[in-house]
Amino acid sequence: MQQARPLPAYLISRFHGWRATTYQDNKAWFRRLAESGQHPRAMVISCCDSRVHVTSIFGADEGEFFIHRNVANLVPPYNPDGEYHGTSAAVEYAVTSLGVAHIVVLGHSNCGGVKGCHDMCSGHAPALEEKSSFVGRWMDILRPGFDRVRQAAPEDPLRALEKEAVLVSLENLMTFPFVRAAVEDDRLTLHGLWNDTGAGALEQFDPSRAAFIPV
Amino acid sequence: MQQARPLPAYLISRFHGWRATTYQDNKAWFRRLAESGQHPRAMVISCCDSRVHVTSIFGADEGEFFIHRNVANLVPPYNPDGEYHGTSAAVEYAVTSLGVAHIVVLGHSNCGGVKGCHDMCSGHAPALEEKSSFVGRWMDILRPGFDRVRQAAPEDPLRALEKEAVLVSLENLMTFPFVRAAVEDDRLTLHGLWNDTGAGALEQFDPSRAAFIPV
Amino acid sequence: MQQARPLPAYLISRFHGWRATTYQDNKAWFRRLAESGQHPRAMVISCCDSRVHVTSIFGADEGEFFIHRNVANLVPPYNPDGEYHGTSAAVEYAVTSLGVAHIVVLGHSNCGGVKGCHDMCSGHAPALEEKSSFVGRWMDILRPGFDRVRQAAPEDPLRALEKEAVLVSLENLMTFPFVRAAVEDDRLTLHGLWNDTGAGALEQFDPSRAAFIPV
Amino acid sequence: MQQARPLPAYLISRFHGWRATTYQDNKAWFRRLAESGQHPRAMVISCCDSRVHVTSIFGADEGEFFIHRNVANLVPPYNPDGEYHGTSAAVEYAVTSLGVAHIVVLGHSNCGGVKGCHDMCSGHAPALEEKSSFVGRWMDILRPGFDRVRQAAPEDPLRALEKEAVLVSLENLMTFPFVRAAVEDDRLTLHGLWNDTGAGALEQFDPSRAAFIPV
Repeated sequence: MQQARPLPAYLISRFHGWRATTYQDNKAWFRRLAESGQHPRAMVISCCDSRVHVTSIFGADEGEFFIHRNVANLVPPYNPDGEYHGTSAAVEYAVTSLGVAHIVVLGHSNCGGVKGCHDMCSGHAPALEEKSSFVGRWMDILRPGFDRVRQAAPEDPLRALEKEAVLVSLENLMTFPFVRAAVEDDRLTLHGLWNDTGAGALEQFDPSRAAFIPV
Repeated sequence: MQQARPLPAYLISRFHGWRATTYQDNKAWFRRLAESGQHPRAMVISCCDSRVHVTSIFGADEGEFFIHRNVANLVPPYNPDGEYHGTSAAVEYAVTSLGVAHIVVLGHSNCGGVKGCHDMCSGHAPALEEKSSFVGRWMDILRPGFDRVRQAAPEDPLRALEKEAVLVSLENLMTFPFVRAAVEDDRLTLHGLWNDTGAGALEQFDPSRAAFIPV
Repeated sequence: MQQARPLPAYLISRFHGWRATTYQDNKAWFRRLAESGQHPRAMVISCCDSRVHVTSIFGADEGEFFIHRNVANLVPPYNPDGEYHGTSAAVEYAVTSLGVAHIVVLGHSNCGGVKGCHDMCSGHAPALEEKSSFVGRWMDILRPGFDRVRQAAPEDPLRALEKEAVLVSLENLMTFPFVRAAVEDDRLTLHGLWNDTGAGALEQFDPSRAAFIPV
Repeated sequence: MQQARPLPAYLISRFHGWRATTYQDNKAWFRRLAESGQHPRAMVISCCDSRVHVTSIFGADEGEFFIHRNVANLVPPYNPDGEYHGTSAAVEYAVTSLGVAHIVVLGHSNCGGVKGCHDMCSGHAPALEEKSSFVGRWMDILRPGFDRVRQAAPEDPLRALEKEAVLVSLENLMTFPFVRAAVEDDRLTLHGLWNDTGAGALEQFDPSRAAFIPV
């Protein structure tokens, strides 16, 4: 691996600062987490976007959340075809190995992946339609959501599609037999959230109103 | 999506705490990030493990890092077959849309995914060998690393395999044409790190010594 | 410009060292910053004093802070008279062109400019009173702060005046219409800091206590 | 000063990290600098631009450089009219109080202030022409440089103007009687540099060739 390069000096400096402060003050907890294993209460599926910090908005400590982050916080449908499925592997590990009690799907505003899906499905992004586009193929997961948004014709179709991304993921989660069994057996609870990162707002999906409601 | 449930009260309470403090004091920055878009300098690929917080060890602000987290911080080889590839989509988005200058692959100690791979490749985890095991199939990515570790026969084969997971990912990253082009054109730099979460230690891969060295 | 002379050799040597190491390892980031422009999150107004390094105490990377440094970190009041106003130009550029989210005024201990102001206002520095003294006239900006300190008669009047320099600058910032508008519109946040360079300490102004409090 | 707000938590965390490491390891030097005063060998006049870190490219320690940073690294001509002149005050303090041996004017590539000047002088930026534009009025200092560039009609007029900004500042420095006296008395040396931040290159002005030459 000849291409690896030294870390920028400011990151090394920041790491040593963290070690001398946060680590030093919490060493007992970090060591216990290392020795007795992680026991996270929840899995969070959120976007890679640099503006979304679930650990920040929920004041999370090390050890609390098992966090999978991918483009547009999507979960594909259950498809055990023997190929690589990173998201499905993360869900399987969280539910069957760690036994998390919650899965939270956290969508957000100004999502570039969702916008790409909207452009593609509207015919305005031919490059994303190509077979070789990983982003385009990944956003195919959201096509059923795009169809629903088009039918509903909401005022702000991008925000609507961001919220559909949460719902599609929750629906796809239920196609995994081990997820469905855990939910039906009351060992697992699912939650759908949407975060307006600019306004600092959080909405959760309420099935009784079929809508996202501010928390 | 009838299965969605309200968020636990303690998380709602924490969110309101975050909103009244961190958000209130940084509203201007969050709004600007929302309005003018993210410009992260680096993509970080780390594990879902609840003990790994890259934002914490590097004192990161919102907007600094585009973060993909999956089981065992793995990148599969380039394979544009039109199927869902969440990790490849994240890498493609980071490199071609955001133009990040760094990709950091961050491995860690006590990695459950790596241990599963070790057990599976050693013949001690038949369930992971099954076609229907998402974790098993995902950890197949690390099989070349397992072979190298077996040959080297190090004192601590699990730690060695955790570090191999970083190297395999870096190698696979170089199979993506847009990654290779950006690296060769000096628009992108790759870094391999391994974090001992219990000891609060950080090592980086040094190609000249073919080893991970404490920072 | 016949008076220009070659750079001292030790600086040329250091530059080549930086180029062979830091630049080489971060070339991708430096190039991206050059090509896609700067997006600093904050403006810092600090003193020219050689002992004050904001990039060091905040582990800053290239691209993070837009930094204006002048004698005693002062901002004059808004005065659009068509003359040269370097500080006002820097503030205007940061707020209206770059849209920074924070302005941090960073004062410090043992400030020579502040001491000059104290001596001058106490009648002990007649040379600074002269019209031709650029330092004296510049420190006139701090005269309202001197009057407040004299009335309060604190134990350490120089430290008190150094902190007043921060407050006077923050007050003067609010006289700029584009600063006030951005603050009132929650697009900009102001912060007042004072750094004890010898003790390695940092205090921030807390309006609720009307005092500087250690961070 | 009711508008002051608490510092973002990540900056406080980074500061504590710096204090626990860099400060702890260099406490003796920081304390000596505080107690026996600064004795910087050089004054550097550079731009506020977040991509220009003179302390980084010259591996500077605390105490080495007295640094004034303003928009486009400009020095106005000598004009002791009793008004606020922040740049002139910084030069006066460096030369007459600190007795620096060098003044380095450091220009750079992609300078937003220089581009604004070019647009304004070419008639493409009417807003910068207004009396109330602090940036426009500040960039008036560079008008003589614009005229020279227009006459020379170089291939890259923006780069040429960035270099003219260095020369105009050096020329204006020589209009200050205490600068001229120190230069003529061999107590002070002037240097003109231009930094290509993306390419990591540094050029210095060579009067014998009337050109900027790579160091």
